[in-house]
Amino acid sequence: MDNAARHGDPSSVARQADSVLSPDPEKFGLFLVGARGAIATTILHGLEAMRAGTPPIGLVTETGMFANVRLADPARFRCSGWDVAGDVHRAASDLARTGVLPHDLVELAAALRDRFEMDLAPGVPEPEDEDLVDPQSAERLKLPPARMVDALRHDLREWLQEPRMRRGVVVYLASAERSRPLPPGWDNPEANPLDLLEVAPETISRSLLYGAAAIAEGLPYINFTSAPGASAAAMSGWAKRVGVPVFGNDGKTGETLLKTALAPMFRDRHLNVMSWEGYNMLGNRDGAALTDPIRALGKVANKDAVLHEILPNPRLHTGVRIDFVPSLHDWKTAMDYVHFEGFLGTHMSLQFTWHGSDSALAAPLVIDLARIAMLAQDRGEAGAFAPAAAFFKNPLGTREQDFHRQMAMLHSWILGG
Amino acid sequence: MDNAARHGDPSSVARQADSVLSPDPEKFGLFLVGARGAIATTILHGLEAMRAGTPPIGLVTETGMFANVRLADPARFRCSGWDVAGDVHRAASDLARTGVLPHDLVELAAALRDRFEMDLAPGVPEPEDEDLVDPQSAERLKLPPARMVDALRHDLREWLQEPRMRRGVVVYLASAERSRPLPPGWDNPEANPLDLLEVAPETISRSLLYGAAAIAEGLPYINFTSAPGASAAAMSGWAKRVGVPVFGNDGKTGETLLKTALAPMFRDRHLNVMSWEGYNMLGNRDGAALTDPIRALGKVANKDAVLHEILPNPRLHTGVRIDFVPSLHDWKTAMDYVHFEGFLGTHMSLQFTWHGSDSALAAPLVIDLARIAMLAQDRGEAGAFAPAAAFFKNPLGTREQDFHRQMAMLHSWILGG
Amino acid sequence: MDNAARHGDPSSVARQADSVLSPDPEKFGLFLVGARGAIATTILHGLEAMRAGTPPIGLVTETGMFANVRLADPARFRCSGWDVAGDVHRAASDLARTGVLPHDLVELAAALRDRFEMDLAPGVPEPEDEDLVDPQSAERLKLPPARMVDALRHDLREWLQEPRMRRGVVVYLASAERSRPLPPGWDNPEANPLDLLEVAPETISRSLLYGAAAIAEGLPYINFTSAPGASAAAMSGWAKRVGVPVFGNDGKTGETLLKTALAPMFRDRHLNVMSWEGYNMLGNRDGAALTDPIRALGKVANKDAVLHEILPNPRLHTGVRIDFVPSLHDWKTAMDYVHFEGFLGTHMSLQFTWHGSDSALAAPLVIDLARIAMLAQDRGEAGAFAPAAAFFKNPLGTREQDFHRQMAMLHSWILGG
Amino acid sequence: MDNAARHGDPSSVARQADSVLSPDPEKFGLFLVGARGAIATTILHGLEAMRAGTPPIGLVTETGMFANVRLADPARFRCSGWDVAGDVHRAASDLARTGVLPHDLVELAAALRDRFEMDLAPGVPEPEDEDLVDPQSAERLKLPPARMVDALRHDLREWLQEPRMRRGVVVYLASAERSRPLPPGWDNPEANPLDLLEVAPETISRSLLYGAAAIAEGLPYINFTSAPGASAAAMSGWAKRVGVPVFGNDGKTGETLLKTALAPMFRDRHLNVMSWEGYNMLGNRDGAALTDPIRALGKVANKDAVLHEILPNPRLHTGVRIDFVPSLHDWKTAMDYVHFEGFLGTHMSLQFTWHGSDSALAAPLVIDLARIAMLAQDRGEAGAFAPAAAFFKNPLGTREQDFHRQMAMLHSWILGG
Repeated sequence: MDNAARHGDPSSVARQADSVLSPDPEKFGLFLVGARGAIATTILHGLEAMRAGTPPIGLVTETGMFANVRLADPARFRCSGWDVAGDVHRAASDLARTGVLPHDLVELAAALRDRFEMDLAPGVPEPEDEDLVDPQSAERLKLPPARMVDALRHDLREWLQEPRMRRGVVVYLASAERSRPLPPGWDNPEANPLDLLEVAPETISRSLLYGAAAIAEGLPYINFTSAPGASAAAMSGWAKRVGVPVFGNDGKTGETLLKTALAPMFRDRHLNVMSWEGYNMLGNRDGAALTDPIRALGKVANKDAVLHEILPNPRLHTGVRIDFVPSLHDWKTAMDYVHFEGFLGTHMSLQFTWHGSDSALAAPLVIDLARIAMLAQDRGEAGAFAPAAAFFKNPLGTREQDFHRQMAMLHSWILGG
Repeated sequence: MDNAARHGDPSSVARQADSVLSPDPEKFGLFLVGARGAIATTILHGLEAMRAGTPPIGLVTETGMFANVRLADPARFRCSGWDVAGDVHRAASDLARTGVLPHDLVELAAALRDRFEMDLAPGVPEPEDEDLVDPQSAERLKLPPARMVDALRHDLREWLQEPRMRRGVVVYLASAERSRPLPPGWDNPEANPLDLLEVAPETISRSLLYGAAAIAEGLPYINFTSAPGASAAAMSGWAKRVGVPVFGNDGKTGETLLKTALAPMFRDRHLNVMSWEGYNMLGNRDGAALTDPIRALGKVANKDAVLHEILPNPRLHTGVRIDFVPSLHDWKTAMDYVHFEGFLGTHMSLQFTWHGSDSALAAPLVIDLARIAMLAQDRGEAGAFAPAAAFFKNPLGTREQDFHRQMAMLHSWILGG
Repeated sequence: MDNAARHGDPSSVARQADSVLSPDPEKFGLFLVGARGAIATTILHGLEAMRAGTPPIGLVTETGMFANVRLADPARFRCSGWDVAGDVHRAASDLARTGVLPHDLVELAAALRDRFEMDLAPGVPEPEDEDLVDPQSAERLKLPPARMVDALRHDLREWLQEPRMRRGVVVYLASAERSRPLPPGWDNPEANPLDLLEVAPETISRSLLYGAAAIAEGLPYINFTSAPGASAAAMSGWAKRVGVPVFGNDGKTGETLLKTALAPMFRDRHLNVMSWEGYNMLGNRDGAALTDPIRALGKVANKDAVLHEILPNPRLHTGVRIDFVPSLHDWKTAMDYVHFEGFLGTHMSLQFTWHGSDSALAAPLVIDLARIAMLAQDRGEAGAFAPAAAFFKNPLGTREQDFHRQMAMLHSWILGG
Repeated sequence: MDNAARHGDPSSVARQADSVLSPDPEKFGLFLVGARGAIATTILHGLEAMRAGTPPIGLVTETGMFANVRLADPARFRCSGWDVAGDVHRAASDLARTGVLPHDLVELAAALRDRFEMDLAPGVPEPEDEDLVDPQSAERLKLPPARMVDALRHDLREWLQEPRMRRGVVVYLASAERSRPLPPGWDNPEANPLDLLEVAPETISRSLLYGAAAIAEGLPYINFTSAPGASAAAMSGWAKRVGVPVFGNDGKTGETLLKTALAPMFRDRHLNVMSWEGYNMLGNRDGAALTDPIRALGKVANKDAVLHEILPNPRLHTGVRIDFVPSLHDWKTAMDYVHFEGFLGTHMSLQFTWHGSDSALAAPLVIDLARIAMLAQDRGEAGAFAPAAAFFKNPLGTREQDFHRQMAMLHSWILGG
């Protein structure tokens, strides 16, 4: 695949799409946890739109930085995955009504959604959600954790049997999980996660089960949600030993992206940020989930920590609020107030309002990460993959939170390949 | 002077101040054009405050990046310069009332201001301002340009005769100049500016006259205003030949700083900025000057160009307005609206409001540049000095406008010294 | 028609729609100047949507204030009018893509648009636009003004011959006109406008021609654009004598509405507003027209004057900018900065950002005004109609600009009927 | 006192000040609970500044509405009151450093503060604060409630013995109280509060004790804090019987003022507000107190309720957050996001940022209320005084929350006097 001079050439993906018709094109499985959610639905439709010639706006892997790298062609991605409830037709029409997916696209993709639905597997719900999930997923709740992992691995093997589908990645896109302590042994980098599953089903994060299944099948695992999936020491240690790269945590799509792009300016200009207060409003399923303080815990901590890592002021005051505002649907509006001190202690301020579609911001990053993950695997990377730090609120393998330095890390890795 | 671990150690300047009492301390001349203006007044008082222990917030040269570099001690800076009108006592009390300078500091520095006033020289006004300037400056207006430069050189030599004052820098801080075409010959890098002064006095920018005087006296020249001073090919070419570094143009203090810190994020995330509209309001002398469209021309062009350099969209729509709002005094409020396209063409927006004191933002950068200029001269740098690009809207010697890459350039230069 | 308890009963219009099927329902002509523009297109579709049960959000005449008044049923409105160019199908699909009109509605209304198109008459363009208009409208440009008015009157009589269409109103919705001085005699309240048409065609505002035609045919005239149509003394004087009410000028839909709703709070709290700067961005045909400073003149003056009328500070600084930002399409984003002084001269600020669809804000007000105009005519009102001041930036017959007092005026008039 | 044409005549108060020198001027006691707090300190200094000629910006009673009413002259106000801790000199210098009080004024008023301090009485603390209060106030904590009221009445009688001090008002300005249920009997309008004090000291709100003392001494009581002081049925009933007017609750100074000034515009234009989210940041003692959720309860409820009273949408989503951001000191920054639906369900938004000094906004309203309270008493008003609703978040005697209608109520009362 020729990436050269791709930037500014919106037809590049369209041209690649022609090759789909060529004999024996390789396919890549994109196995999504939360497959009927807004992000997954946007990915499914977005890949289809790009096959039809829509320019790949939002894909980092379609900028000049990747011009000389051979990446998997998104036109050959095949989506499948798991979910515990929902209806992808309804998700799509909700996103069209909200202005995220074009109406025409949603109409044209009805058959694609039918095929996608048929291919999905039941998910592994959290026990607290038992009453909210579909019967097949409820069935999986009765299994002990080791059997859950077996079922997920079975699903993956089924999907990978499709002709010419030789590889893929697993992406965890479920809503923010309830915060749970790591079960015993999971903090040991020498342990094998498959030996750590003899625990009560309600004590273990689902992200660990999906991650274990992915790695056991040799597939890179991308933990895009606020969940421990890829960061447990046992998981990343094992991934490193068996040669599978893992990515995470918690996709950096909106307000936190802005924080990590702006805070370096204050640091570099020696302006003393005294307070940085961030107010997030969103109205989608993810927003509803975060009204549960136990679920919000990890996400708020991730959003909050980045500033303390970048800015030197030990007395920096930060606040993060996430409020569920149903009328916003998929639109996340963040209002931040930054109060800082300049020369001679003069008080100044910066205030910003970010108004973005959560799913339209996240979906292309997931496609990027899937492409990078397969490239990383080709290059022999294994375990926690630090060069993708720019994509995450709480990156694995590095404490660097400055977005621009993270991009420089990614650039170095690409050049060094 | 020990810069190690300076960052986070606000007492470092205070400690250095003790050494002022030591025998035979070297002094550094800070020769300011526009010496009774708000920025110069803030510099004068800020240096005094730092001598008394105020932490050096806002000084880039007091961050960790400069920890292992030997820089001139601000405690040993001695301010002087030129102005065509005004009263530094009034400037100081205006800045105190506006909340830029602390009241106590202004009261304590009355004697310092008296000494400063006594030392000032009349400036070289623009002919259009003849009726607004003091009699001594009006006198200088009658001279032909070559004699103006002689007078300025004479002033510099006077100031440099002060005991132990062996060196200094000239900083152009006057209000935005009226836009004038370069006089003949000034675009020739081989020419000697001193040979190009046989022109009508109303056809030549004052910044060229001050620059010629500075370089002729071997002093680095920092063009902090929107003016051609340091960028005329004849000036930078001559400076290179005679071994003097020159810096400019147009200090990057507020809204433009933010633009160049934020635009890279959109570029790197492949988000397509469609429109970026910037509205600037300010109420000081600089703001009043910019109500003259001929003066505003250069400044607006500088503020506007940065985005087109960073962002790839050839159809990017940008707007820059600068409005004089007297009630704001020294406070510059900028409101920017960024309209961008994400995945599948979804429209999103970022809006920000920046509320900062123009003078408190500019003053520490001038001190930084003076220190860097002397370091550069020590290291043998000459002509247009590109590594200081991060300080300017329209940097010399480079087209790089990405603030983070500019900071990386500066860092490389420091390490490479 | 029963308006009681309408507020909070979104089905009321739907119920009225049933009566359309009843024998012999009266019809009301809504004769729109600029019939293919965004506002007219939104009105056309909005009336259809309300017939199908969409709640009448945005209609002032559907609030409790009008509960006991007999108003024309919008379900019986029949749209027609004039335009000089354009295509209503394209206007509708543009508004759908921009998120103003629902996609389904635009699809369902194709036949309605076809009928509407067939019924339209060519408009009377401004001479400057000769090359931009359709051939039939260009033809009308060749007529002397008196013949233009005859042609427009002929169109009105044609439309009114439709069975059971006994009355109607004319609404001027064209883009902001180029500013022209009033031709001789038009400032005389005793004159008859039909006697004042012997002028060169390029010297007279089109809004005067449409207004003269409307009044000559006994139809109320609503001047919703920034144009002199209803305010020329000859026009309102004549309207008064012949018993026709006229309404205007310049619909108050967004930023100016907010200004007149907020400024009274500052006045009533005795907070001294020093500066009020308003920045408007919009991307539709109206926005493009306003890039012509001659067209923008009146609109900017109207937007600016309201504050000086409400706020007592004689040194109040105000600014109004209107910028054409194409990517915004029909969305008008206004950012205002209010700088005010409180107790002991303390400086404080209010800043707001308004993001609204120009057409979705204007369309229901036009329907309101049409209903109120017919009610006023029934009640014997004639000439400049002051009680509708709340709908206009530059209201006729009153200097009151306080939105809340304007609403109280309207309320009094309704009760007094 | 001549109020005519006062508006726009900033010297009016200064002129009145001359009369202070006249023989036998009457004095008015302003007895403040929380006398060393930021609001009280601002009142103390503000009255002094107005005596010296500072224009009465922010005083509603100095607008044209009161032109023909005889009000107490602020130049004759004499401040005294209670507090449980603090130091008025420190409060003043804090307010100067923060930009609320002018430096000169604070310097000039040192002797005034000394006299004020000498006159203050110990306050009645909440038991939870025992360790934070001064010894004299701690002493009062040991008294049973009935004795506390006796002590407060004794203080009032002392202050009123000053020559020519014949009357006064009591204003409750303490920080938001901890929420406590009303003790038995206080909900009975027929009861006498002095008979309801046989309760455990930790079960009764301090605002009830101060209120009982004020009314028992025949002084109007203004409950400016979020506390039950004036709204308990026993209190207002008794006040009515004994001929004393009472005012409250919870001064409407900033974000809530804006809400009640803006929401009527949405209602009147039939725009359907779906969500209104308000984020408040402040850094003063009041802000610190509100980090205690038990204290914040009442305030948040008051700020939230106003919208539901004005806007008709039964599914309106509202949110109110109050965050303590120490770097803001006395400056309250509120960021509100209003999401609303227009014609055909189009989603639009209004966002605002209010940046105001809490004390500079509150202080003039307290002076206004004191003047109005004495006027009301002169006119024979007694019990809950509804015409002052515009000053309060949770007004007594009316459910009207529309600021403009509240102002109309006040206007009517003034005219009717």
